[in-house]
Amino acid sequence: MGDLAAAIGAELIGDPAAVVSRIASVEHAGPQSITFITGKKYLPLLAQSEPAAVVLPLDLRDQVSTIQLLSENPYLAYARLTQLWADALMPASDGVVHPSATIAENAQVDRSASIGPGVVVQESAVVGARATIGAGAVIGHASIVGEKTSVHPNATIMHGVTIGSDCEIHSGAVIGADGFGWAPSSDGWVKIHQLGGVQIGNRVSIGACTTVDRGALDNTIIADGVILDNQIQVAHNVVIGENTAIAGCTGIAGSTTIGRNCRIGGAVSIVGHISICDDVLVTANSFVNRSIKHSGSYSSGYPLEDSKTWRKNAVRLHRLDQFARNVIQKS
Amino acid sequence: MGDLAAAIGAELIGDPAAVVSRIASVEHAGPQSITFITGKKYLPLLAQSEPAAVVLPLDLRDQVSTIQLLSENPYLAYARLTQLWADALMPASDGVVHPSATIAENAQVDRSASIGPGVVVQESAVVGARATIGAGAVIGHASIVGEKTSVHPNATIMHGVTIGSDCEIHSGAVIGADGFGWAPSSDGWVKIHQLGGVQIGNRVSIGACTTVDRGALDNTIIADGVILDNQIQVAHNVVIGENTAIAGCTGIAGSTTIGRNCRIGGAVSIVGHISICDDVLVTANSFVNRSIKHSGSYSSGYPLEDSKTWRKNAVRLHRLDQFARNVIQKS
Amino acid sequence: MGDLAAAIGAELIGDPAAVVSRIASVEHAGPQSITFITGKKYLPLLAQSEPAAVVLPLDLRDQVSTIQLLSENPYLAYARLTQLWADALMPASDGVVHPSATIAENAQVDRSASIGPGVVVQESAVVGARATIGAGAVIGHASIVGEKTSVHPNATIMHGVTIGSDCEIHSGAVIGADGFGWAPSSDGWVKIHQLGGVQIGNRVSIGACTTVDRGALDNTIIADGVILDNQIQVAHNVVIGENTAIAGCTGIAGSTTIGRNCRIGGAVSIVGHISICDDVLVTANSFVNRSIKHSGSYSSGYPLEDSKTWRKNAVRLHRLDQFARNVIQKS
Repeated sequence: MGDLAAAIGAELIGDPAAVVSRIASVEHAGPQSITFITGKKYLPLLAQSEPAAVVLPLDLRDQVSTIQLLSENPYLAYARLTQLWADALMPASDGVVHPSATIAENAQVDRSASIGPGVVVQESAVVGARATIGAGAVIGHASIVGEKTSVHPNATIMHGVTIGSDCEIHSGAVIGADGFGWAPSSDGWVKIHQLGGVQIGNRVSIGACTTVDRGALDNTIIADGVILDNQIQVAHNVVIGENTAIAGCTGIAGSTTIGRNCRIGGAVSIVGHISICDDVLVTANSFVNRSIKHSGSYSSGYPLEDSKTWRKNAVRLHRLDQFARNVIQKS
Repeated sequence: MGDLAAAIGAELIGDPAAVVSRIASVEHAGPQSITFITGKKYLPLLAQSEPAAVVLPLDLRDQVSTIQLLSENPYLAYARLTQLWADALMPASDGVVHPSATIAENAQVDRSASIGPGVVVQESAVVGARATIGAGAVIGHASIVGEKTSVHPNATIMHGVTIGSDCEIHSGAVIGADGFGWAPSSDGWVKIHQLGGVQIGNRVSIGACTTVDRGALDNTIIADGVILDNQIQVAHNVVIGENTAIAGCTGIAGSTTIGRNCRIGGAVSIVGHISICDDVLVTANSFVNRSIKHSGSYSSGYPLEDSKTWRKNAVRLHRLDQFARNVIQKS
Repeated sequence: MGDLAAAIGAELIGDPAAVVSRIASVEHAGPQSITFITGKKYLPLLAQSEPAAVVLPLDLRDQVSTIQLLSENPYLAYARLTQLWADALMPASDGVVHPSATIAENAQVDRSASIGPGVVVQESAVVGARATIGAGAVIGHASIVGEKTSVHPNATIMHGVTIGSDCEIHSGAVIGADGFGWAPSSDGWVKIHQLGGVQIGNRVSIGACTTVDRGALDNTIIADGVILDNQIQVAHNVVIGENTAIAGCTGIAGSTTIGRNCRIGGAVSIVGHISICDDVLVTANSFVNRSIKHSGSYSSGYPLEDSKTWRKNAVRLHRLDQFARNVIQKS
């Protein structure tokens, strides 16, 4: 327990020699568990689950009967605890190249990188030290995977993509597919070949089945510390600033710029060629149909109703302008 | 024809020795076809397409000139018919392990399971009897694929995922990627390693490019009989109850619980940490921004208009509260 | 430069022997670059970036100091220029079959087709002349890939799918997964096996992680010249007409028909069993909840507001029908 407290920077009240076998939610903790709570309202749950130890905020000192790990920020301490368990559970990157992998002769794969079964590393690609490429993943021509970056199974990195260090690219993600650029002609759509690439910074996480398209001429850019959830679409020439977080199923159309430290909710749709400044919060399911120039919280979306009420309101909504004109005229 | 009638529990009126070569829609049936209709309104189409045989409801007895298969539930009978054709068309699971597959030494693959080219079955994974793993699919460390479950080509099952029997996981699906858990810190986002797994019941279908994230500490749970269409996002620690059906492109944020026998339409977005009770219907494109405590039908969403009307109404919508205040004040 | 001008059908004013090394956006052009502008407003940017040559509209003749390539349609000329660079950058389809590929004995792979590492071509499949199948892609049983069509890495083509010539199927796309067809029964959902296929015309582009389901009995159909962006869901028995363009994250439910030359924005949701006529424009984030019978522009969606205003308006929206009734009653 002393080790755990030190690792997360918490003050330990209790036996430093005590051990726990797992980290658990407060609802499902038990005598072998360490858990965490972020406030007073979880004390009753804690009393029920009787864990061996709990990470808790400073102001709850001595409110519990278990071993205490007092922390200024229990949620962050919990994040750090999960790192310890993950390190124990996950096999370390071990520098093994599976014999079924196909690695181009002039690709540069660091000796300490791990390459899984069926992986393909194409010509001139670079895989950095202690990077891990999961089974079936493809690293395209001249693409770069930075140190300690993990590309999960069946992810696809196309050509000319640069990924920094300490990143995670989850399964099914596709980085560097062609942006959707077409010129109309009398013979139908003429493809604008996408000659730019994708540039991803350090400590970036990209979720499962998220797609980040390559730029038309310039690069699509994702800055350091950005975290993207699953099934996000990032179109060509989008720029996402440092430490911005985006939840699942959000789509960002071409050439839009998003600032730093933004938090974009899930299922948001963001039109192209706009600019969102730093420190913007967009709530889930919003339609961002214009630039945002001032930091703050933004929303849109039609909230849930019973279907009968919705049908009536929707009819009124359809005539809203006419209704308002009538009312104003009469008043 | 006698065999078909028996297989679907229909009463046969016509030659039991007659044969058909295909099952067809009523629009495209022909003399070699069996088709089905669910009501009287399809009789004219039936007269045009002249199939050899038709499955039809009891109250349409003798309304047609073809062979009749009278059924209490023609749509269900049609579903059962398709099973017969599918069995004939699809190669049976044949217990062949393709030599290009990579199977960990301590993985347990049943002798009757079929393992396609390039498949990877990692350490301690289990593949049950008559299961089929399609080309390029990955079964992660210690994951379990139940009997007769089919994992389609290029699907990815990460570590610690349990899938029951008679399930189908379509191509491009990713089960058990990390949930989107992050703690803010002065140095940016700190990852909360996702230590839970995914637990999937029996007779579950998961669509192409659908993602089901692993839990943070506890499991993400999908109960028996759940059917999920394509491109659905199921975030960490979501629980979906028995026989619930969810249409494509719907997203469910973290820790939300959905009851049994619900039907959720396509492109619905459901926020996190809410609860939806049993027997709820949510229509397509709705935004579920709160818990639902009573069974029934729920909706939201802005219905389609011509763009000019929409622009005018949208301006009014933006000022709706102020407009309502003005009207109430004056009245 | 003379060659470039001829290739794009532009009038050259300047040294035909001049050469450029890259094609660049007007913002990032430099002395080695050719760029393009579509109108007068870009002249100041052009003056700053000082490219070697510029493609520009006829009415800007002699407004610039660089080499001029005068074009009736500079955007289309730019698209054609990118083709030249793409040809130079991309390795040509070279008729190589990687030894790690698995090709069924009775599959027909043209000698000039290229088959990447880990590719699987199943029984009775056909791969046409100069087609390219990227690493890890799967071509299912009896499916056909037309001449010069490119299937990118880790894309999945299921059985019974026909793809025409000059198509592009991007990574992570899944063509021919089962449509979402289920009959309710007292024992839960009974699968309607999807016995139809997918029929894709010529010059079709399908984006990364886009899914096109196979038909229930008849085929799902995508006509010549259709372009689909990333993460689009096309359900079973959808029909999409010639040269229609659809942006990312849009979902189309089952049996809907979309006409020719339509332009559908991103994140649109389209319900099933409706019909959209030719030459329809639908703006981003719309909910198409009914058929469209007249060409024109259509929209819906709740535009962005600050969250405080949205919360107030949303409450009014919830009571809109009652409010309108009250006002009408009083007037």
